[in-house]
Parts: sequence; structure tokens; C-alpha cells
Amino acid sequence: MTPIDHVARITRVVDEVGDGVLVVDDLTDLRWLTGFVTSFGWAVLRSGELFIGTDGRYGDKAIAETAGTGASLIIEQQSAGLAAQRENLSVGHEASDVIVRLRQVKDDAEIERIEEAARIADAALADVEPMLHEQPTELDVRAELEYRMIRLGADDRSYPTIVASGPDHGARPHHGASRRTIVEGDTVIIDVGALVDGYHSDMTRSWVIGEASTEQRETYDLVAASQRAGLDVTVAGGSSRAVDAACRGVFEAAGRVEEYLHGTGHGVGLDIHELPFHNRATDVTLEAGMVVTIEPGLYRVGFGGFRIEDLVLVTETGHRVLTHSPKREL
Amino acid sequence: MTPIDHVARITRVVDEVGDGVLVVDDLTDLRWLTGFVTSFGWAVLRSGELFIGTDGRYGDKAIAETAGTGASLIIEQQSAGLAAQRENLSVGHEASDVIVRLRQVKDDAEIERIEEAARIADAALADVEPMLHEQPTELDVRAELEYRMIRLGADDRSYPTIVASGPDHGARPHHGASRRTIVEGDTVIIDVGALVDGYHSDMTRSWVIGEASTEQRETYDLVAASQRAGLDVTVAGGSSRAVDAACRGVFEAAGRVEEYLHGTGHGVGLDIHELPFHNRATDVTLEAGMVVTIEPGLYRVGFGGFRIEDLVLVTETGHRVLTHSPKREL
Repeated sequence: MTPIDHVARITRVVDEVGDGVLVVDDLTDLRWLTGFVTSFGWAVLRSGELFIGTDGRYGDKAIAETAGTGASLIIEQQSAGLAAQRENLSVGHEASDVIVRLRQVKDDAEIERIEEAARIADAALADVEPMLHEQPTELDVRAELEYRMIRLGADDRSYPTIVASGPDHGARPHHGASRRTIVEGDTVIIDVGALVDGYHSDMTRSWVIGEASTEQRETYDLVAASQRAGLDVTVAGGSSRAVDAACRGVFEAAGRVEEYLHGTGHGVGLDIHELPFHNRATDVTLEAGMVVTIEPGLYRVGFGGFRIEDLVLVTETGHRVLTHSPKREL
Repeated sequence: MTPIDHVARITRVVDEVGDGVLVVDDLTDLRWLTGFVTSFGWAVLRSGELFIGTDGRYGDKAIAETAGTGASLIIEQQSAGLAAQRENLSVGHEASDVIVRLRQVKDDAEIERIEEAARIADAALADVEPMLHEQPTELDVRAELEYRMIRLGADDRSYPTIVASGPDHGARPHHGASRRTIVEGDTVIIDVGALVDGYHSDMTRSWVIGEASTEQRETYDLVAASQRAGLDVTVAGGSSRAVDAACRGVFEAAGRVEEYLHGTGHGVGLDIHELPFHNRATDVTLEAGMVVTIEPGLYRVGFGGFRIEDLVLVTETGHRVLTHSPKREL
């Protein structure tokens, strides 16, 4: 894979921060900026110089991962000493969203990783899908998906895979996976992603087991239409609010927006949920290089639910879909 | 499994809080108290009455999971309305650690779940161990362990399984798992746990692939001796500091305490790391019913590392070890 160019990122942040002082406490921001992956550490950018602090547990890892960035490392065994250095370096800093903001637009090396993660989840789902019709439990399906993603080259699942089936679990957008057996007549939602070199993918597909009822077919078609409507307005210069409104509008026109229980999408990168968010409360202008989900769904207890979610790269002329699992008609 | 008695917990907390107002924002505390498992919600205990707030996504789940607790549910579609209700209910509250404190001592239903999780991890490790000697990658081992734990009855892994092999990864206590191939002469650390009905287990074992060198054998024996020393002083009325000192003392006596890069243990329950913590900075009196890890290790870049960790239930007369995977001599 193309190496991540951390020097370019540091240069961009130095340009933005200028004479200011930037403190980086968020560990994902730290990773994005420096390449250092840790559960304890921070960075301070001061007068154009980058300092990274961590403790002895991560000393050699910090040295290896930040080689070539030009950062100065402060590795202390005593947390009090480290805290004092951080205090001194941080004098005069102000809160800043510069990194979170820059993280929204992905470079080619990032897109390569996200696309590979999406490809792995696609391949795992293609392998596992036939099993849905053989009365597995939700957890059986999840275990197979997560196992296969690692075998196919993922470092891990992107998040705990959701397998939500039947009239009760299927109606809960954030159901995990249980020992419930998936049976004829069920709606099934699978929300699955892979992790590749820190980058996530995110995708959802939905099924009916056996012959779909008229209500199931109509509901699924409505979700599919809503998702297409969201995709249709996903373009650089468009807005996250417009994407949300397009998806929501299809449900409103059908008088079923009360069954739409969550936002329409979010950015994906080193975090599975990051800026920009597509919902009624936000209004972000889409930029080329953003990677976002579009994921409308309908849910009703006693019926179950459907969600269809793609991960897409925003481009100047529209978007490129990164998740390729088929969205079959029922 | 024995049902969790949430009414008993609520009664205990009501007794402790008395006329005060308790606000529960931590989602694990919320689960412990009420049985409601959510990614958004809170509880307020006021004048002996328990209110639980959440939004529409989790409405039916809250109703189902808190049935019989006597709590009043506030389920709102508009977050502004919910926030206002929370504000009103919270008037006069003070910060309190009552739930975190009570969570330290486990009841029989909790011990049953933790023990089952430990049993599953033991069984998965027994299945997978022979594979270590067949040149797998670290991720191969991890994928098999996590897959088997679900097949054996776990709801999930307790945490991302650590498989840390060789002179570099093995020297990093918090290494995850990579595509590195495990080969002859490597030290290998596997840190694995299962999740059962929200409760975690936690265990670490270490190996040398092939014939151990003298240095490897001596180092392993030292870690094993340190771990036994920690177990020996684990008893109700003992202290977390004494456990840490016992483990650390073995390394100090051997002049190798600089290679001990982390704390000695922690409580395990609904969180994988919870009170009490065994380290130099804390001093908690051990009580019967606490479930804690004892997990000393030695690490050096260029050599690798060993860690041995058991999960134990503190009893009046000593402790009961919950993790049964063999600790083989090298």
C-alpha cells in the first residue's frame, strides 16, 4: 500500500496553526498527524516544532512509528515529569478543530485503505450470505463474517458486526447480534465493515428470508429509493443537509418518516464515525475527497426493519461508491 | 443462567443515596443498576424514585429491559425536551461514586457469568494452542480464538485479543496482533477473554516456540514466581498494594523490575478494567466477591516478553482462580 505521508500532514497543520500553539490529545488525531498508534500520548505543535509525549510502555513504538516526521519525542517513565513537560509546552494554546477538520478530506493513501477495507467486507459478505437461508443464529453469521474478514486481509472488524433479524431485533437500528435463530419470513439487517491499517469501512444490506410479503417488498423498495435519492445529491458542493433531506423526503412522501429512527450518514476514516454528519441538525458543504455513508432505514416493532448503506467517495462530478455488495430487489 | 437482580441493586443504591439525588451518566453504571443496555441514556434517582431517560431509538429496548424494576421511563424523540427533563430531575445532585464502588463486589449471578466467560476462553485457547507451533501469523491465531469463543457460547470477545510474538512485538505489553509469522525461538504472549451477558473474562499465557533458551526459561520462571507471589497474598482483608508489591518484589529481588512495564492487575466485571486497581499508586482493601486479575510480566526489546495472568475471585479465606488454562513450565 502507498505509505501515508505524515510529513505532508504536519506541514499542512503547521501552515494552519502559524504562530499559535496546538495541543493534540485525541489519540486518533495524534495517529493521523504523526503515525504514532498508542493508548497514551499527546503532541504539541509550538513555533512550528512538533513534540510527542508518551510513557515507557510505548517508547520504542513511538520511535519506530514517527521516524522521518522530524518530531521530538519525550518518553518518560514518571508520569509527573511528563505532565510537567506537557504543561510547559502547552502554554498559550487555544482549542482548535484544525485536525478534525482536515481529517474530513481523505488523500489517496487513505482512500486506498478504506477501499480495501470495503472490498474485504464485500467479499466476506458474499461468502457468508448463503448461510442466511440455513437457519443460523445471528451470532453464527457474525462470527463467520468477522473470521472471514481477517482471513481476507483485514486487521480486524471495523465495529461489532450487526446482525438484526425478525420483528423485534430487526426493528432496533443498533441491535448487535444474539443467539436468535434466523427463520423464514424474517427481515434481516447486516451492518458490517473491515479495518485496514487503521481505516474503517461501513456497509449495510437487508434481506427477507424466503418469499417477501407485499408489505416487506414495499418497505424495502422505499428504503432503496430513499438511499438512491441520497446518492443522487452526493457531489462536491452539495450539502450534508441536502443528502439527509433527500433520503428523509422519500419517507415523508410515503407518510412513513416516523419509522426512520436515525441520521442519514457520517464520515468514515480513522474513526468509524467522524465528520461530516448527515442529519437535520448539521449543514456541511461536501468536498471532493470526503468519504461518507448514506444509510436510510425503516423500522417498526412487530415488523422488523431494513437499512441500506453504502460508503461513497465524494468527487467533483458526483461520487464513487466504494461498497459493491449487490442490493438485490426482493 | 441466574437472572441478575436489579431490584436488589436499586434498593441498595436507594439506601446509600437516602435523601440525595444521584445522576447516572456512565452507561455501564446504568446497565448495572437497571439492566438497560444502550448507547444513549441516563438515570436519576430522586427521593427514592428512579427515572430512566433515553431517546426513541432505544424506547422499546428500555421498556423490555427495565420491566419489573419499578423505574419510570422518559422516552423522547426530541433531545431538547429530554435534556430539559434531565435538568429538572437533577437539581441538587452531587457527584457520587456509589455505583462504581458497589460494582467492585460481585454477586453470585455476576460470578456465574464471569466464570462462564473464563471457561469459554480456556476452551478456545486449548483448541487453538497447537496451531502456535505451525507458523501461523499473530492474526491467524487471534481470528481462530475469537471465532471459537463465539462458537463456544460467548457473545463476543472481551477485548481485541493480543497475540504478541518475537523480540519486538513480544516486548510491547499492549501490542495487538499483526501479520507477523510466529517462528521457532519466539516468545509468544496471548491475552484473551470472552464476553458473556455483558461480563468479561481476562487471561494471559506465554510460550516459547521450540526449545527455550536459558534466558527465556529463567525469565519465564521469574514471571511465574511473581504471579504466584501475587496470588499468595490475594485474600479478603489484604490490599491491592500488597498484591502489587508481592509481584514487583520478585522482580526487584532479581534486579529486573525495570522490565516490568505496567500495573499488576485490575477488577473485571461489566468493564474489562474497573476498580480495584493493583498498582503502586492505589491502596484498596480486598473484599470477598471482588474479581481481579493478577498479571505480572517482563519485557525487553530484542528479547520479547512473557506475561502470566489469572482472573481470581477474592474469598474470605483466600481466592478462587477462575481461569484454568495450564501454565506450563518451559
